[in-house]
Amino acid sequence: MDMSKVVESDSSSVGSGVLQLSLDSIRESLIRQEDTIVFSLIERAKFPLNSPAFEESHSLDSENSSSLTEFFIREIEILQAKVGRYENPEENPFFLDNIPHSVFPTRKYPPVLYTKALSVNINKRIWDVYFKELLPLFVKPGDDGNYPLTAASDFACLQALSRRIHYGKFVAEVKYRDAPQDYEPAIRAQDKEALMKLLTFEKVEEMVKKRVQKKAETFGQEVKCITGDEKNYKVDPLVVSRIYGEWLIPLTKLVEVEYLLRRLD
Amino acid sequence: MDMSKVVESDSSSVGSGVLQLSLDSIRESLIRQEDTIVFSLIERAKFPLNSPAFEESHSLDSENSSSLTEFFIREIEILQAKVGRYENPEENPFFLDNIPHSVFPTRKYPPVLYTKALSVNINKRIWDVYFKELLPLFVKPGDDGNYPLTAASDFACLQALSRRIHYGKFVAEVKYRDAPQDYEPAIRAQDKEALMKLLTFEKVEEMVKKRVQKKAETFGQEVKCITGDEKNYKVDPLVVSRIYGEWLIPLTKLVEVEYLLRRLD
Repeated sequence: MDMSKVVESDSSSVGSGVLQLSLDSIRESLIRQEDTIVFSLIERAKFPLNSPAFEESHSLDSENSSSLTEFFIREIEILQAKVGRYENPEENPFFLDNIPHSVFPTRKYPPVLYTKALSVNINKRIWDVYFKELLPLFVKPGDDGNYPLTAASDFACLQALSRRIHYGKFVAEVKYRDAPQDYEPAIRAQDKEALMKLLTFEKVEEMVKKRVQKKAETFGQEVKCITGDEKNYKVDPLVVSRIYGEWLIPLTKLVEVEYLLRRLD
Repeated sequence: MDMSKVVESDSSSVGSGVLQLSLDSIRESLIRQEDTIVFSLIERAKFPLNSPAFEESHSLDSENSSSLTEFFIREIEILQAKVGRYENPEENPFFLDNIPHSVFPTRKYPPVLYTKALSVNINKRIWDVYFKELLPLFVKPGDDGNYPLTAASDFACLQALSRRIHYGKFVAEVKYRDAPQDYEPAIRAQDKEALMKLLTFEKVEEMVKKRVQKKAETFGQEVKCITGDEKNYKVDPLVVSRIYGEWLIPLTKLVEVEYLLRRLD
């Protein structure tokens, strides 16, 4: 199967009736998610690194030894679970092992993903990558003390990145259904390398990287009433392209591999 | 005093030393906040109106009669207070009458605003305006059941709009300090109309409306690798301009008036 169909074709669809999964809808969602990711990076870049928010404990409460950011995100995930966010198979929590029930009626999502592969969650890795590798690339060093807004902004980035990366589960499911015979030998052999090779389409990846670079140029420019020539981007567009190329695309494929490894369980 | 100095001049500054308040910093913040507001409207427009989330009680818990959105925002504000968000005089909660103490050490903000006028808060009005008037202007009608993400998205819009509108307190303080003699007679007479007149600069308002329209065009376009001619905006740029002209600018001025009415208490 041609991966380019998943993210680039304009009309192909393998919509599987009851399960409502199509290449078109996946492609549209991934492209729209790029905007969300670029917006969230631009918003985070308003603040400097502010590492005390996420690095060490600044709690006054001796029972609470987590960083401000971890405390905030742990608590907000409980709250979001209470309004039903994690019933949506596109949403993957960072800290919830046992997801609290929603106190509101929730939408029933059709069972699109394979049950035994549904729980793939690499958010621990995304957390580390984000704070240790990505953040220093696109924010200024320094500390302005504005930790509450920084934590909220980090959470928006983390959720957007996590959603994109875990969308790999839907990509993998569609690709598997489209050509199970291509994937089954590698799945039965639990051969990660062979699966990664089947999932890699360099041309498509190059195009995604170019497109997000253009999005960072477009959304991160200073918009004035009279257009000048100087360009002063809020986030370096090449960095955004690099974030996609070095982390987001590989981590999405990692989710695809992990999903497929469980696809015949 | 010329209002245009506050939001348009490139070099003027009345930075008042200790208090760190300058026309330049206010102007820069307001312009940067436009990006945040436009991003948040574009993100909210991914979802249809989803009115059951905010209109009626869908709670399973009989003790909780608020809407999902109100429940979510009330709880998240408590959580944000616990990490110190509302110690920042730029942040104004929607529901907190008694702001819980932060469980983390907090930044000390210099006392920029006049103590007796500090507490001006028109968030009840902003809430009503947002759900009843603004939202139907820029989202599609309908209900896709995705209430948890819709509520989070509404909260992002509400916070961005509220911050912009309540920035009127800083604008008013700077204008007052720059020419107290211009404002004192109207303040002593508690003459809202005269104050509103002193605060209104139509040319500046027109320019802000044009600029946000251009921002909505720029940030809400479909970005492709190959540029086509068709423009398909995620949020109608004229609607964004109208939101500024009919609600954001007048409500900001309302905050300015309310602030100034208390400025000599």
